[in-house]
Amino acid sequence: MKIGLIAGGGQFPILFSKKAIEKGYEVFAAGFNSETDLLLSDFVEEFQWFYLGQITKLIRYFKQQGISHAVMIGSIKKTNIFKDIRPDFKALAFIAKTTRTHDNSILTSFADLLLKEGIEILPSTFLLPELICPKGCWTKRKPNKAEQKDISEGWILAKEIGKLDIGQCLVISNGTVLAIEAIEGTDAAIKRGGLLSHQKGCIVIKRCKPSQDLRFDLPSSGCQTIITMHEAGATTLVLEAGKSITFDREDMISLADQYHISILGYTDEDIR
Amino acid sequence: MKIGLIAGGGQFPILFSKKAIEKGYEVFAAGFNSETDLLLSDFVEEFQWFYLGQITKLIRYFKQQGISHAVMIGSIKKTNIFKDIRPDFKALAFIAKTTRTHDNSILTSFADLLLKEGIEILPSTFLLPELICPKGCWTKRKPNKAEQKDISEGWILAKEIGKLDIGQCLVISNGTVLAIEAIEGTDAAIKRGGLLSHQKGCIVIKRCKPSQDLRFDLPSSGCQTIITMHEAGATTLVLEAGKSITFDREDMISLADQYHISILGYTDEDIR
Repeated sequence: MKIGLIAGGGQFPILFSKKAIEKGYEVFAAGFNSETDLLLSDFVEEFQWFYLGQITKLIRYFKQQGISHAVMIGSIKKTNIFKDIRPDFKALAFIAKTTRTHDNSILTSFADLLLKEGIEILPSTFLLPELICPKGCWTKRKPNKAEQKDISEGWILAKEIGKLDIGQCLVISNGTVLAIEAIEGTDAAIKRGGLLSHQKGCIVIKRCKPSQDLRFDLPSSGCQTIITMHEAGATTLVLEAGKSITFDREDMISLADQYHISILGYTDEDIR
Repeated sequence: MKIGLIAGGGQFPILFSKKAIEKGYEVFAAGFNSETDLLLSDFVEEFQWFYLGQITKLIRYFKQQGISHAVMIGSIKKTNIFKDIRPDFKALAFIAKTTRTHDNSILTSFADLLLKEGIEILPSTFLLPELICPKGCWTKRKPNKAEQKDISEGWILAKEIGKLDIGQCLVISNGTVLAIEAIEGTDAAIKRGGLLSHQKGCIVIKRCKPSQDLRFDLPSSGCQTIITMHEAGATTLVLEAGKSITFDREDMISLADQYHISILGYTDEDIR
């Protein structure tokens, strides 16, 4: 079986390829300059570089290989969308049709465009369901009553922000929202929120957008999130159970335990 | 006539006092450590220092002076609320009753509390209506078509953010929200957005929250806003006509003209 891999940055594309090979797939990867880890080429059948925006070239590559199914995995730094894009005619026509470039819907539209060309996009977790966040408290330390109040409030606010399709992460402390993520990234938002909390502790909530197309990368966290939180003095991480993923979950939990950080897999049912 | 002035930082309390004296008022000011400009004491009948949270002391001060009307003017750095507060018993009872410390409604509740003690809070602009932003384009340069598209979209998004009572300012470029202000302040949000736009230009929108109590400081801008925007490569400033204020408007406009920045006084009717 052949499968296409449209690969952004981070370790997820490599994780995926390893698992795909295990399951007997031949992986044909498309990587992006300044995004994709070059190491990925060691784990795939074939690898080709692209610039963001080279849609025609991408479709031709997959068609030539006889690819009918693909995944889109790994991050594209949203900040790079502004500086390292080389849109071809198909991309320009595509951009002209979409109103907001930061939309989650841009990915859905892109997947629809590929489908018209005979390439179906599968959910990023279809080979790695174990990455999906489970419900409950993962750590030794559970949030205290004051933290629980912030969690309940921040959870609702983060959904409202998510509805606007702007960012995923919110930092809250004592009823005050300290930082909201736009395109600067989760780590930068956590650092900013931590600084504004004057090390008095704060809650980090990272939610899936309500409109999130579950085929594409779900919000992800890992050890770096916990390290950044520790440095920022953040005490609790709340993730969306079932709709977000973590890498190296065991290491992440043991780091969190070491720093007395709580991690929670949360759903709307958990609001008190 | 006597009037109380609960004075935060910035030039607005001094502007107010000068105008009040002109109009024949005797101004009794309450200032806050690390917020209020010490210069204010030169322009008022009497001046007394307070810490944030000393509500009982504040009420006693005004009552002793026979004050029945007061204004709350000038900024309190939201970041200071976390480090320089000395709540007395009345303040603790007050805090216990409010759920979110960053709420606009905290000011409304505070004004209600003062009213029960016989001190009515008047709108901050009642002596200086000329500070209120007029409608229309104030500058030589008008926004182009692409900017107008971002303005229309950002204007609506900023209102949604405002409904959540988190921040007032949003930075947008080519349909992508680059930064949303929480408690870091407008200048920090403009700088962050500008950096993320890679100097390709961006729009700054600063709106009044839909729930804003018009008695208290409306969103304000001034020359510093234009200087920060210029440094950040931002091209257009959109303010809410009728519901926000500017200081030194003439200087602000001539700076904006010099930097080819557009300034617009906008209302919901202007959305295209």
